Amino acid sequence: MTLKVLVIGAGGVGVLTAYSLFHRAKCEVSLVVRSDYEKAVQDGYEIDSCDYGQIHNWKPHHLYRSIEEASASGQFFDYLVVTTKNIPDGPSPVRKFIEPVLKSCFENWDPKTGKSLNVFLVQNGIDIELEIIDLLKADHLCSDGVHGPKVTLLSGVQMIGSTKIGNCQILHKGQDYLIMGAFDPKDTLAISKVAEFKDLYWNEGKNHFELDENVKWSRWRKLVYNATINPLTAIVGLDFTRTLLFGFDGSTEFGILRPAMKEILAIAKSDGHIIPEEVMDYMIDCDRTMVYKPSMMVDVEKTQLMELEVILGNPLKVAAQNKVPCPNLTLLYNIGKIIQGRTKEKIGMITFNEKTGNLE
Amino acid sequence: MTLKVLVIGAGGVGVLTAYSLFHRAKCEVSLVVRSDYEKAVQDGYEIDSCDYGQIHNWKPHHLYRSIEEASASGQFFDYLVVTTKNIPDGPSPVRKFIEPVLKSCFENWDPKTGKSLNVFLVQNGIDIELEIIDLLKADHLCSDGVHGPKVTLLSGVQMIGSTKIGNCQILHKGQDYLIMGAFDPKDTLAISKVAEFKDLYWNEGKNHFELDENVKWSRWRKLVYNATINPLTAIVGLDFTRTLLFGFDGSTEFGILRPAMKEILAIAKSDGHIIPEEVMDYMIDCDRTMVYKPSMMVDVEKTQLMELEVILGNPLKVAAQNKVPCPNLTLLYNIGKIIQGRTKEKIGMITFNEKTGNLE
Repeated sequence: MTLKVLVIGAGGVGVLTAYSLFHRAKCEVSLVVRSDYEKAVQDGYEIDSCDYGQIHNWKPHHLYRSIEEASASGQFFDYLVVTTKNIPDGPSPVRKFIEPVLKSCFENWDPKTGKSLNVFLVQNGIDIELEIIDLLKADHLCSDGVHGPKVTLLSGVQMIGSTKIGNCQILHKGQDYLIMGAFDPKDTLAISKVAEFKDLYWNEGKNHFELDENVKWSRWRKLVYNATINPLTAIVGLDFTRTLLFGFDGSTEFGILRPAMKEILAIAKSDGHIIPEEVMDYMIDCDRTMVYKPSMMVDVEKTQLMELEVILGNPLKVAAQNKVPCPNLTLLYNIGKIIQGRTKEKIGMITFNEKTGNLE
Repeated sequence: MTLKVLVIGAGGVGVLTAYSLFHRAKCEVSLVVRSDYEKAVQDGYEIDSCDYGQIHNWKPHHLYRSIEEASASGQFFDYLVVTTKNIPDGPSPVRKFIEPVLKSCFENWDPKTGKSLNVFLVQNGIDIELEIIDLLKADHLCSDGVHGPKVTLLSGVQMIGSTKIGNCQILHKGQDYLIMGAFDPKDTLAISKVAEFKDLYWNEGKNHFELDENVKWSRWRKLVYNATINPLTAIVGLDFTRTLLFGFDGSTEFGILRPAMKEILAIAKSDGHIIPEEVMDYMIDCDRTMVYKPSMMVDVEKTQLMELEVILGNPLKVAAQNKVPCPNLTLLYNIGKIIQGRTKEKIGMITFNEKTGNLE
């Protein structure tokens, strides 16, 4: 029986994830596309990928206009792969939009299959799993309050220089490097599902897949990049190479990024995770002359909200609990919040009254 | 004999300064206008001023297209009032552009008058006088290497919410508060010239003039605003009120501005100047709901260079000498430098090669 995977989110990461599964051809791939739906159905995707080459007019097995439409399709999905932005302060927090498809999977679950429902979060940040665990605990997902599939929670981080540069146009510049593990390292069912997903996803010689026994460590590691380079480029509105060079005298690297990265290392350490200092060199050197626009910078450029809370807000909560001083991250976060507010005004989430000088 | 004043710089501050002198009607006012020259000659200025009301089609006694043109006019100016931006890293540093008019004043000086040449810097920042002192020491200003007027160096800071909002259009929202003193508090000639200038400038009941026996203290005081609110609004690209509100939870004020302001107080203290903590409240409260765009923010918006070096670079040099830790100011400065680099690319001062990922 063919395994069914629903990929939620059709940005640079989501489309590449769906394509990698499709290319491997071991499962049925469904993709939730919102703004690009019409064009995706008609023409498919144009993908310029360093892993897979030039791909024209590509479509997954199924396209859905919304999560509600995917939920209403009457299917049980073996895997829900969440690749959307994770923005708790935005209009569409993960917990809210994943609830309907979880419910429909519970409804459409056939006990005879003995299948588990596997939720895989391929998203940035730290402590993003907690709200899903809360949601899964809720009894209301089972129609009878008792029966339902076992649920596993899988967590992944992806280093992938992939960006949606236009309507159904994806530019993928850095090898897809997916690190995946069970959120609970003691959950043997979840661990077996990670192995199963590897078989569905890994295209040898193309993308890179790594089983991860300590996925939280990997999340902290990725934050070395994401909590520093990502918000800084968003604040200054420049690609990473310009951001590095325009400081002159190395002040961007040695006056901002490395001090901020050291703070991430210190918070991670306070949380029990040792990230080696060499990771800082790697994160800076890998994109040094790549003229790459990190995701938050692209968000600001496109007047979209950034994943500021899960990437910078949550680490700073851990820092506050563990009393780790973080002057650089704190300032980047506080400036980032103002930039986020600027976007919130532009997209109409908040209204500023010029006459009173106050928010309405 | 009528005193002649040359105002150099026709931005929000320069035009208001020239107008205040003109309104007092005790001297002959010349103004160097660059980009707005044609319109200024033809239509004059439109000024919307909280001190002077609505002023239409105003012109000073003389308009010059450039400093060279003012220099070539064959006059001796009693006062050179420099109100331009002070940008040592830009294409037109003060030392460079003031040299020709200093030379012409030396040439056109009549020993029989016994007049002094008085250079008045109404500019932001700290330690901006040093390069002018160097220049005045140079023998080449006197044609015969011996004779020439005595030169005084006057220094002023101005709190004035005045902005050029269009071609020859000035919007002036906060009362002109000029604080002026001799750069060298022991120079009695300079002190007498400050008193003379007060008589030329002060329009009782309109603008405010304050004699200053410790002008460096006043410069540090103004930096409480200029080294914090000014660069922050430039970085986030918002007026001050939005910058304050969009951080939410008071994080702009208590997480960025007050910590940075405390650092300015600490550097000033290390330089021998005690600024009271209440100044921080004043600086934040005076513009809290004014929806005012500080000068650096306007510079970035207009793709102009900011006075970053004299406002943030120079204080941080003092901090480094005196070993005052300034994490917040340092980060604001380092981010500000990247924003300045962004402008430098836009105006063609630097060229970035996208293919090599390097500056050319």
